[in-house]
Amino acid sequence: MQSDHRPVIILVRPQMGENIGAAARAMLNFGLTEMRLVAPRDGWPNPKAVAMASGAAGRVLDHVRVYPTLAEAMEGVEFAFATTARGRELSKPVHSPQSAMEVARSHQGRVAIIFGPERAGLENDDVARANAIVTVPVNPDFPSLNLAQAVLLMGYEWGRVEMPPEPAPHGRRPVGEMLADRVEIERLGDHYEEKLTEAGFFFPESKAANMRLNLRNMWSRLVLTRGDVRILHGMLRQLTRR
Amino acid sequence: MQSDHRPVIILVRPQMGENIGAAARAMLNFGLTEMRLVAPRDGWPNPKAVAMASGAAGRVLDHVRVYPTLAEAMEGVEFAFATTARGRELSKPVHSPQSAMEVARSHQGRVAIIFGPERAGLENDDVARANAIVTVPVNPDFPSLNLAQAVLLMGYEWGRVEMPPEPAPHGRRPVGEMLADRVEIERLGDHYEEKLTEAGFFFPESKAANMRLNLRNMWSRLVLTRGDVRILHGMLRQLTRR
Repeated sequence: MQSDHRPVIILVRPQMGENIGAAARAMLNFGLTEMRLVAPRDGWPNPKAVAMASGAAGRVLDHVRVYPTLAEAMEGVEFAFATTARGRELSKPVHSPQSAMEVARSHQGRVAIIFGPERAGLENDDVARANAIVTVPVNPDFPSLNLAQAVLLMGYEWGRVEMPPEPAPHGRRPVGEMLADRVEIERLGDHYEEKLTEAGFFFPESKAANMRLNLRNMWSRLVLTRGDVRILHGMLRQLTRR
Repeated sequence: MQSDHRPVIILVRPQMGENIGAAARAMLNFGLTEMRLVAPRDGWPNPKAVAMASGAAGRVLDHVRVYPTLAEAMEGVEFAFATTARGRELSKPVHSPQSAMEVARSHQGRVAIIFGPERAGLENDDVARANAIVTVPVNPDFPSLNLAQAVLLMGYEWGRVEMPPEPAPHGRRPVGEMLADRVEIERLGDHYEEKLTEAGFFFPESKAANMRLNLRNMWSRLVLTRGDVRILHGMLRQLTRR
């Protein structure tokens, strides 16, 4: 089933109810729905968490399971990532969020992502229970991600791999619109050249050939849709109506 | 200089000071430091923004520049992304955060990312001034990203370290030519709008607003050099000389 494939989010000893609620929202933004809590400081349920997680995110909280220890919270989990900024000190594979979620996607069984308490993060004893580490590459001079933001970035990476492929490299083309073909561009250039000639635009004579060439170059270079070409013809017609 | 290469974050009509402060933190997490504000609801400076942006993020706020309109806030910007979930309705290229930041990274000049007000997001009139749209692929049943989260995800994509160098998507830009900045595009749009209004182009009245919007969208979307803008002004001047 599709739901069994999605990562479980485990919050270890979270302190603020608001952050638990915000983490639930961040999860649901990217379709993650299973949250587990290890020894939340203020017990469970937590009204501040509920107040923060409006609407559908409230249902994520309704299904939260609470465990006394991280070891117990890992039930059914086959592969776990610990989120920590101290990856380099610990002898585990260190992943970026992107590569962690690539691993998660290719994994057959359940994957968990473990987040530590707001103030201090995961302890070495928690990290020891994970298969690998995931570290968000933040500005070392200002690494201030909060709990919900860290969850958001992991959810984003999960959602990114699940989403359809990136738009084609010619992403400049408006969605659903046909680009003009070269014949249409040629006609557009002819129309402008004719009317601009009548208006005395190509002056002085010594520069006229070069000006014409520049104009042709411009029309060819711009990425014009059929709609654009229609507008540009219409504008010129209207401007030269008299 | 490296700093000239980093995207500018433009918040249009932000409502809550706290969100401006949180956006500054999110920016700095990924090394972005230039924020511009368009008509912030509660004026500027805003003590609630300062309270939220502690430490180094406070310096991002110290350097904020405030503008009355989005058009003016685009000074020096060559390529602008509008963040909106309504990409599919608008005739602009739609990017994921990843492909948008690939474009930004390979761009020589300044790039801006524009974010709308918390409640309603960017208006069509704002989006019309951007070259392209960027949409975060969220769960359609729970698309609840807040302003600072949206900024965070764009910053994260900017800061992504694993990216191999990308081929320049601006292959169509003439070598050695400067792209027009958004203020120049704005003036070009004004010039055409004025002369086309005089010529009775925006007719019938019931369609005029939409026609104006389409035209703004077209100018913003085309990748125009300064030379192109000069030619387009010159053409119009010559065509309407009488």
